[in-house]
Amino acid sequence: MSLEEIGGIQVDLVTETDKACEELIFDHLKKNFPTHKFIGEETSAALGTAELTDDPTWIVDPLDGTTNFVHGFPFICVSIGLTIEKVPTVGVVYNPIIGELFTGIRGQGAFLNGNPIKASQQTALVKSLLATEVGTVRDKSTVDATTNRINSLLFKVRSLRMSGSCALNLCGIACGRIDIFYELGFGGPWDVAGGAVIVLEAGGLVFDPHGGEFDIMSKRVAASNIHLKDVFLAALKEGEGSSSS
Amino acid sequence: MSLEEIGGIQVDLVTETDKACEELIFDHLKKNFPTHKFIGEETSAALGTAELTDDPTWIVDPLDGTTNFVHGFPFICVSIGLTIEKVPTVGVVYNPIIGELFTGIRGQGAFLNGNPIKASQQTALVKSLLATEVGTVRDKSTVDATTNRINSLLFKVRSLRMSGSCALNLCGIACGRIDIFYELGFGGPWDVAGGAVIVLEAGGLVFDPHGGEFDIMSKRVAASNIHLKDVFLAALKEGEGSSSS
Repeated sequence: MSLEEIGGIQVDLVTETDKACEELIFDHLKKNFPTHKFIGEETSAALGTAELTDDPTWIVDPLDGTTNFVHGFPFICVSIGLTIEKVPTVGVVYNPIIGELFTGIRGQGAFLNGNPIKASQQTALVKSLLATEVGTVRDKSTVDATTNRINSLLFKVRSLRMSGSCALNLCGIACGRIDIFYELGFGGPWDVAGGAVIVLEAGGLVFDPHGGEFDIMSKRVAASNIHLKDVFLAALKEGEGSSSS
Repeated sequence: MSLEEIGGIQVDLVTETDKACEELIFDHLKKNFPTHKFIGEETSAALGTAELTDDPTWIVDPLDGTTNFVHGFPFICVSIGLTIEKVPTVGVVYNPIIGELFTGIRGQGAFLNGNPIKASQQTALVKSLLATEVGTVRDKSTVDATTNRINSLLFKVRSLRMSGSCALNLCGIACGRIDIFYELGFGGPWDVAGGAVIVLEAGGLVFDPHGGEFDIMSKRVAASNIHLKDVFLAALKEGEGSSSS
């Protein structure tokens, strides 16, 4: 999260904490991996998001859930991801408030505080717990699309949660606390780079909410357990409502 | 929470855990306060909600956030309230997952794990964090009213959280994690009896989301810090949208 125009279109926050944490993480990683590349939320806020290449690239959000952090709402995390040839390969997401460390390495499983985790086995959309976020953009067409989508989905799922952290929502899929999740228009690849591999290693799926393959640079993400992807995508498509139908 | 009709209008859950916990709590309280009255979520689900009288009455939700409990989402709590002459006088709300115990006694302050808590000092609605829930009723007019209200509010507040526990939302107001909260159509007085006194003792306000005084039996609640009530009520009124304007 990066911009705040009080009373305006963007309702977002910067804190000094973000910047200090990103420097700390990058300094440590650069010492250990001097040839790797780095993409960070705060660096990108200042310089623009770097292009993602095939090189090993550490993608870091030092503080996902900045609004929560400012308000003291306990869903915040540090998210660190490593891509190799653009494929999410290592993911580390840590919520220091609740004391939960989610980790995943491609081909080696996903873990919560060292214990293996699995996505849910729910097969019925109507029994599924959905997570999403309302984002930070407040123009009329975006807000209307957001609430139209939610309206449509509420007839199809059990209930809805909004926790304020994209990375922790992905980890929620990975440990089966939520069954389906989507978010559109978040900040950048740092919100999903860590969580994506954790979901996949937990047996879940990560994909584009419009259908098609997940693109880490697209600022769109959907995730589900292995059973719900198709019905969830169909429900999302119906939720696009009058503006697209 | 009490009813489930799979694929139907109500999407709610009963667990054996609810019933066992309510019995445990009532047995303990009845031993210590044999002349008091008792209203419990599970008892009421079976027998209908008892009338609230002026007698000292313990109002208990053994498990607020039943959907969260079933899914493993970490916002669940035990909520216990005592009313005397219908006034919320003692409140205890405990989230065993996160390890947070909120307590309040009328005239003696509000506490989180023994430390005094205060509602936020936010004065600007546009910087406020809003909490609400989508409820369990899924007929078209209710869902449309729910999302119309959210649509209207999103233009006025910083962001929105849905955690799935009414009692913990009230405690969120009490400790300043959220600035404004409303919920319409929840289960009964057990969702608010514990949290209400905790909010008031933390310097917050509890009121009817349609304006007027909070009625513990009305299945409607709104809460805010001391500064935001009037602007919040005005925003809620605007959010009633085309159906009421």
